[in-house]
Amino acid sequence: MPATPARAVVLLSGGLDSTTTLAIALQEGFRVHALTVQYGQRHAGEVAAARRIAHSMGAVEHVVCDVDLRRFGGSALTGDLDVPTHRSREEMAHGIPVTYVPARNTVFLSLALAWSETLGTGDIFLGVNAIDYSGYPDCRPEYIVAFQRLANLATKGAVERTCPVTIHTPLIDCTKGEIIRRGLALGVDYALTCSCYVPAADGSACGRCDACLLRLQGFADNGLRDPIRYVDSTP
Amino acid sequence: MPATPARAVVLLSGGLDSTTTLAIALQEGFRVHALTVQYGQRHAGEVAAARRIAHSMGAVEHVVCDVDLRRFGGSALTGDLDVPTHRSREEMAHGIPVTYVPARNTVFLSLALAWSETLGTGDIFLGVNAIDYSGYPDCRPEYIVAFQRLANLATKGAVERTCPVTIHTPLIDCTKGEIIRRGLALGVDYALTCSCYVPAADGSACGRCDACLLRLQGFADNGLRDPIRYVDSTP
Repeated sequence: MPATPARAVVLLSGGLDSTTTLAIALQEGFRVHALTVQYGQRHAGEVAAARRIAHSMGAVEHVVCDVDLRRFGGSALTGDLDVPTHRSREEMAHGIPVTYVPARNTVFLSLALAWSETLGTGDIFLGVNAIDYSGYPDCRPEYIVAFQRLANLATKGAVERTCPVTIHTPLIDCTKGEIIRRGLALGVDYALTCSCYVPAADGSACGRCDACLLRLQGFADNGLRDPIRYVDSTP
Repeated sequence: MPATPARAVVLLSGGLDSTTTLAIALQEGFRVHALTVQYGQRHAGEVAAARRIAHSMGAVEHVVCDVDLRRFGGSALTGDLDVPTHRSREEMAHGIPVTYVPARNTVFLSLALAWSETLGTGDIFLGVNAIDYSGYPDCRPEYIVAFQRLANLATKGAVERTCPVTIHTPLIDCTKGEIIRRGLALGVDYALTCSCYVPAADGSACGRCDACLLRLQGFADNGLRDPIRYVDSTP
């Protein structure tokens, strides 16, 4: 009798990195429980994208968990600060951008940890990337190591040694071009994904914010055209 | 000109331990921003108690943040398991009880961290206690140390060294009797607090669950009567 595939919780934002991470978890043989945290984003397009992706890629379950981080303010993605546009890679790499959401990955991972414990698994996937988001403290390898250490002291399953926690970050050292190449090899349909910080009312990506610029460059690095719709077709 | 008092985020459940912790933070001179996480508790009495306490004790602000941990199941406090009653101290100390909420303190601390960062402080108070709740992995000193280490890698303020994070747990080594003695010395009105896991419709405490039994013993250890109302006046 074949062993039942292990379960994993995959944090799924609906963007390019988390969608690729979901594909990798599936390829590694996990039954995927996708978790989207709705934290007061400026637009609902990301959550809608996450629903489409979880369904079409074969997650066994998708939970959207509401946490209103707007109560705490402090970011262009949850408050009233302006999202910067037309920044170079050098500008993006310098310092922590205003789009940084306070303690976001700590909140996300703690919710994934809660769910993973009730599912009886210790495998959690997070699509963080230390290359493009070098300015975000909670995307760095040393942060992930510290969270895994914490998690192994935090849960009943880890403490009782029945269910040690592993935080999988398969994309942490990849460039955007490498991520896209890996996803395409796994059959990811990037037309389903949504990365733009400030999309238009019809869902078109702006083509100017950091997320759009990184994504466009990643496709360009592969000699490809990004399949999603942009406001200006020649961004 | 006197220095502006430092701010601190205090996690406030409305129970005896977190209320005493709030009193200690005030006594230490902090301006207190109280945070109550509404995580799908079985009853709203705790949140109502937290509102009364934050107001009457002089918190400068009180935020109630909703996170529906029921989505993940797994505990007598958020799901359908039965709350145990009439357990001895020895039974309570043995193993992890069904009232354990998966990753609860990790979720609470991550939200406190998000708020503290936007407030520009690194001081967070949590009323955990390793004596009465020895069965909860996320109440132990080594867990708190690991969270503090994580937090100092997680936030912009900590990484830029403008705002290192300290997790204050002033009650971690105290018995319930000691906690009550300390709170009374600071003028805490324990009649405002709410500890029972399964209160009656009129708000009376059951007198039989772990939380009631520990609390009653704590007052008895001080030769005092608990000022809250119980279903049975001779529990």
